[in-house]
Amino acid sequence: MTGPTLARVRAAYDRLAAVDRPEVWITLRPQAEAEAEARALDERRAAGEHLPLAGRTLAVKGNIDVAGLPTTAGCPSYAYEPEADAPVVGRLRAAGALVLGSTNLDQFATGLVGTRSPYGAVRNAIDPQRVAGGSSSGSAVAVALGIADLALGTDTAGSGRVPAAFNGIVGLKPTRGLVPAAGVVPACASLDCVSVFARTLPEAERALAVMSAPPVRVPGPQPPRVPGPWRVAVPDTAQLGELDEGWAAAHEAAAARLRAGGADLVPVDLSPFTAAAAMLYEGAFVAERYAAVGDFVDKHAGAADLDPTVARIIGNARDIPAHRLFADRERLAGLRAAAMAALGQADALLLPTTPGHPTLAEVAADPVGANARLGRFTNSANLFDLCAVAAPAGEVAGLPFGVMLVGPAFTDERLARIAALLTPAVRVAVVGAHLTGGPLNPQLLAHGATLVATTTTASAYRLYALRTDPPKPGLVHVCEGRPGGAAIEAEIWELPREGLGALTAALPRPMAIGRVELADGTTVPGFLCEPAAVDGAVDITEYGGWRAYTARA
Amino acid sequence: MTGPTLARVRAAYDRLAAVDRPEVWITLRPQAEAEAEARALDERRAAGEHLPLAGRTLAVKGNIDVAGLPTTAGCPSYAYEPEADAPVVGRLRAAGALVLGSTNLDQFATGLVGTRSPYGAVRNAIDPQRVAGGSSSGSAVAVALGIADLALGTDTAGSGRVPAAFNGIVGLKPTRGLVPAAGVVPACASLDCVSVFARTLPEAERALAVMSAPPVRVPGPQPPRVPGPWRVAVPDTAQLGELDEGWAAAHEAAAARLRAGGADLVPVDLSPFTAAAAMLYEGAFVAERYAAVGDFVDKHAGAADLDPTVARIIGNARDIPAHRLFADRERLAGLRAAAMAALGQADALLLPTTPGHPTLAEVAADPVGANARLGRFTNSANLFDLCAVAAPAGEVAGLPFGVMLVGPAFTDERLARIAALLTPAVRVAVVGAHLTGGPLNPQLLAHGATLVATTTTASAYRLYALRTDPPKPGLVHVCEGRPGGAAIEAEIWELPREGLGALTAALPRPMAIGRVELADGTTVPGFLCEPAAVDGAVDITEYGGWRAYTARA
Repeated sequence: MTGPTLARVRAAYDRLAAVDRPEVWITLRPQAEAEAEARALDERRAAGEHLPLAGRTLAVKGNIDVAGLPTTAGCPSYAYEPEADAPVVGRLRAAGALVLGSTNLDQFATGLVGTRSPYGAVRNAIDPQRVAGGSSSGSAVAVALGIADLALGTDTAGSGRVPAAFNGIVGLKPTRGLVPAAGVVPACASLDCVSVFARTLPEAERALAVMSAPPVRVPGPQPPRVPGPWRVAVPDTAQLGELDEGWAAAHEAAAARLRAGGADLVPVDLSPFTAAAAMLYEGAFVAERYAAVGDFVDKHAGAADLDPTVARIIGNARDIPAHRLFADRERLAGLRAAAMAALGQADALLLPTTPGHPTLAEVAADPVGANARLGRFTNSANLFDLCAVAAPAGEVAGLPFGVMLVGPAFTDERLARIAALLTPAVRVAVVGAHLTGGPLNPQLLAHGATLVATTTTASAYRLYALRTDPPKPGLVHVCEGRPGGAAIEAEIWELPREGLGALTAALPRPMAIGRVELADGTTVPGFLCEPAAVDGAVDITEYGGWRAYTARA
Repeated sequence: MTGPTLARVRAAYDRLAAVDRPEVWITLRPQAEAEAEARALDERRAAGEHLPLAGRTLAVKGNIDVAGLPTTAGCPSYAYEPEADAPVVGRLRAAGALVLGSTNLDQFATGLVGTRSPYGAVRNAIDPQRVAGGSSSGSAVAVALGIADLALGTDTAGSGRVPAAFNGIVGLKPTRGLVPAAGVVPACASLDCVSVFARTLPEAERALAVMSAPPVRVPGPQPPRVPGPWRVAVPDTAQLGELDEGWAAAHEAAAARLRAGGADLVPVDLSPFTAAAAMLYEGAFVAERYAAVGDFVDKHAGAADLDPTVARIIGNARDIPAHRLFADRERLAGLRAAAMAALGQADALLLPTTPGHPTLAEVAADPVGANARLGRFTNSANLFDLCAVAAPAGEVAGLPFGVMLVGPAFTDERLARIAALLTPAVRVAVVGAHLTGGPLNPQLLAHGATLVATTTTASAYRLYALRTDPPKPGLVHVCEGRPGGAAIEAEIWELPREGLGALTAALPRPMAIGRVELADGTTVPGFLCEPAAVDGAVDITEYGGWRAYTARA
């Protein structure tokens, strides 16, 4: 009997082989070794041990220590063999997560593109002509492609958020200090956070809960939140600057979803945020990168495995005078005060995660400029001591569009709550016992549904009185191109995804939910039935609907 | 064109007529008046106004002021005409909620049964032979029956939680002071909270967010939560005392679901909680009820509209000496310190909401004893300054079983997060492109699904290669009693309800999800197809599954 962890690991390696993205990994563990660990986990779980993350595969960014794998930070000659897991890796493993390997990154976590690596430019999960985003490029793609369920990144300028946005997944950038950064090759030690990727928000939050104990830094007394609906600060689109085509509308749609979910939208002046963002690479703060790996970069100048762009950025920081750092710190303090005043009582700031999504070719043509543009909205978060959630918010031109919710330190959980409002409600067409006043209508109400419209299906259906108890109708699409279809009365209800899931899970045979064409040509999920149910059922199409049929004399 | 609010109001009155539960209401607004208000709300919304609760019907417990309706507190001769809405009602109305009327209650909110009212004993929504629970009986039943979407209750001893449990809905008892209690007939003024009922947790939380501004009482500096997974304190079943049959197992199942959802379960000594609970009616605290309405009760002694049990409880409190109150307060402070120490770092305490669910006849036979038993777990929350979430946790013998999560003051949001883990995951059977390694398998992963088992359907299906792009199989149940069915390879995946909802919402024609019989005789939701899809499709049953078919030479 194959245990669930072993089955998951096998599926991960199968998927890995199928997608053929070797640049995602710096060191991949041998499958046999991972399978042996999976078997051991399945045995422990079978023996009753509480392993909340058992069955979950984990990818770890190449600048985070994993015992048994070299830590490279994206530079082969920098590699060392860590003696132990970084504490954050150890905690996830102790909870049952299984490490598949270490992933590719912009060298020394210096970049937001995912191309600055001697291990290869990481291609986007959805469109391989575009960048994966970085610096946590391999981790994000491993999750997006379904190989890893969870992945660790790091985030200084946006490295835990930009690749989430570009690959259509969730990235949590926790408050600094909530997750230990020990065992991580520093980028800017005073700003670095360990971040986590997952395909859904609840999965990412679950991992973060495991990652964030014991506490590294404890908040002081916090001013209480002013009660009331969530308040989300949304800057004027004009303040966002130039965005890729269609992105301004997508961002406005995300704001509208938050409002429809009950949040109050409030205005905000974004200028202190973007001013601080520009300071991260243009000012003196970049000298902290030199403090971390400058000696190494100097000694290996011109080496083939040093990324030339990264080496130039770090090398240029050598001669920044300390007095500039004092001046920048003073300026940053002023900008932070202005930013906090601009947020006021807002619980969160909504931003596109990036201004756009470049192709690999565009980044190759302008490695520094294309990269700098990407950090416009992400760079300020760590400078201002904020936390952030990067979440998918639909698509533009077939590519993921991502937004960020940014909030005060130690409001990580609240931000995730607000981000959950981005999930749009869904609709369902009902034609029988779920109609208003019908015996199963309370089921819809119980799952939070509201009536949107009363209409009819397209003239392509027949309705049958099924031999069920209680009596229910079966809606059947006539075969394409054949005559005999009619329009059947339908109500359209809107409900949370969870509600539709609960309705679907509770369906008795022979009912089914599929896709129903409506009179206006649109299609929505709706109640149908199994083919065998129609056998011997009475055709009641002539009544035009279940309500008229049940009201017949 | 009927707007959504008007449609909802009409459906509410239709439902109200259909269920025939007149005892739910003390004063029901005339339908024409409610419809006129609904039309006005629809017009405002159509004009672009942000009314986050528009389209939601609201029932208000009869001890809370609603302008235009008498406030009775369940006693006709006590009634007065309030000049204005209670602030909490005003806030909900300003957000677009539409008040249907005021609801029945245990008189002066003195009771947990819902039978102590001259307006009639309120019957349970699911089983009319059983009590609705009180004191907010009518409000809870109005929500459970789908008439009101939201309802206000009050909670001193458990009045906002016990009826939630008995009627299978959610009840939030906020931290005292989070919601203004002005415009409410006091029960124990220092302990009373306004509470809210809804059918789902997100709906209740949304209402609470609107209710809880502006702040009435602001928390002082709070000790930070120790990071890590949610920690839920679960008392030994033995410490819960005698419970109705099957309830201990249901409570343990709820704890197991929290654990499966990632929470750590920790032990707790319940004795300070139950000791304090006994003090609420047995000690001096009941004198606060006399302070509130004792003069009225004395003056109307023997009146037909005074509930005899309530009058006796309140009248008996007249002669409690003040020195006993000092002594009780001192004892309570000691118990509270012991309780907080017992909770330690736990985020929440899990309890059954009540020890059992009596019938109307049982309460009539022992009005005081049956009532006192119901408060064993709820009574301590307000005495200890805690907040609580009452949430459904399955059924026992066809009746709702409810649990409570109780936590420190001002952790209302966190408690709701933890309560969300009570929702069980669901399963889905896949037979085609969603199988491990298949082209649509990443969809499952994207929604947080994990593989549970590889098995086959019951020997009652045929499999067809549909003419879809990409190619997909159609699983079809053979007609009952006819030969020719076979067992088809299937994988069973487990995923959050929300994930199944997302999968369902994204189904393209002619795919459908219904209920599939498995080889072991169980049934699970699973992929099927529309009847017309089989027309002209190739029968591939002989391959035994889609994987074997696609791997054919």
